[in-house]
Amino acid sequence: MTAELFCFGESGNAYKAALTLELSGYDWSPVFVDFFNGEARSPAFREINEMGEVPVFREDGLTLSQSAIIQLHVAKKTGKFLGRDRDEVMRWLLWDNHKMSGQAGTTRFLMNFIPPEKRPEQVIGFLQGRMKAAYKVLDARLSGRKWLADDVPTIADFACCGYLYYPEPFGFARADWPHIDAWLDRIAGLPGWKHPYDLMPGHPSDRAPKEDK
Amino acid sequence: MTAELFCFGESGNAYKAALTLELSGYDWSPVFVDFFNGEARSPAFREINEMGEVPVFREDGLTLSQSAIIQLHVAKKTGKFLGRDRDEVMRWLLWDNHKMSGQAGTTRFLMNFIPPEKRPEQVIGFLQGRMKAAYKVLDARLSGRKWLADDVPTIADFACCGYLYYPEPFGFARADWPHIDAWLDRIAGLPGWKHPYDLMPGHPSDRAPKEDK
Repeated sequence: MTAELFCFGESGNAYKAALTLELSGYDWSPVFVDFFNGEARSPAFREINEMGEVPVFREDGLTLSQSAIIQLHVAKKTGKFLGRDRDEVMRWLLWDNHKMSGQAGTTRFLMNFIPPEKRPEQVIGFLQGRMKAAYKVLDARLSGRKWLADDVPTIADFACCGYLYYPEPFGFARADWPHIDAWLDRIAGLPGWKHPYDLMPGHPSDRAPKEDK
Repeated sequence: MTAELFCFGESGNAYKAALTLELSGYDWSPVFVDFFNGEARSPAFREINEMGEVPVFREDGLTLSQSAIIQLHVAKKTGKFLGRDRDEVMRWLLWDNHKMSGQAGTTRFLMNFIPPEKRPEQVIGFLQGRMKAAYKVLDARLSGRKWLADDVPTIADFACCGYLYYPEPFGFARADWPHIDAWLDRIAGLPGWKHPYDLMPGHPSDRAPKEDK
């Protein structure tokens, strides 16, 4: 049975799981969640995931949430991208959840997906400061090594890059971080790699007509 | 050899690891990190953990960082608090890192550990809104069940409670969340439980004289 991933294009957290599935050659298909109309926090969706978040993975009666759990499941099942040192891979998955994607996803949302007049500028500035500290850690880590948690790509790479391919501005410029920049090119060079908007349904332009009304 | 945990009293992230060690009856001792004078971000500390964060665990040449990694290590080694469903335990550890402690630790810091005139009120309000959404998920989860990820306590409980025993205000009132309140009492009733300030060195009052100068 084809596995399902509940997701939407703008979600970097969902992208981590989708990219892992895709690069592993998994038999999967995306199920669109209409986040921008509140579907992820609806009672029906909370029946699937009480946390009210994407991604959610379903296969043969198994339901998993949290991108890292899905990534681990896929990596264990396929034997791909798991790395040799599980603790080291997990360490970067956790760091990403706490220090990278947690800040990047929120900042990108505030800067791009709410009306400009409602943007909380102090919050955006604060989060950008925290992200800068995270980019510094990531860039230093990637100095002199190709991949985050092993000498081959692992799911840790596919987690930490979750928000970094998106075109919408959120305070990240690849040119400022040469080691991150080169690493993003390496990930994008893996066979089967796809951009988040090519991998999952849903794109900011889908909502443009509403804004024009 | 006694294991070492690099930590300080005010760190809820370090508390998760310290509490797991203590409740497991592990042979450990705390090593104070002078976070408030920048030690966690010093070059010397980054030699131990490039992420510039506590907690860090060291034992017999093994160095681990990220509280959840340390919790997992201790649980696997002692066979205690690991739960039966590893994915479910991990799911709550990840959720905590992303949605609970990530917000709570930052908000508590901004509200208590920087000069009042420098407090970014918009940021504090924003983070409190996000925390409220997290408390809602946690309280609903604990409605009708005693423990988060199993019918016995697991390291998931010791993660999600990380910041919730601290006396400093950060926008969490136990009385508002009856299921969380009862669960915190259950955790505090476990044999060997200790409050963060009794388990780790360092307390806000240690810095009071400086402020009085």
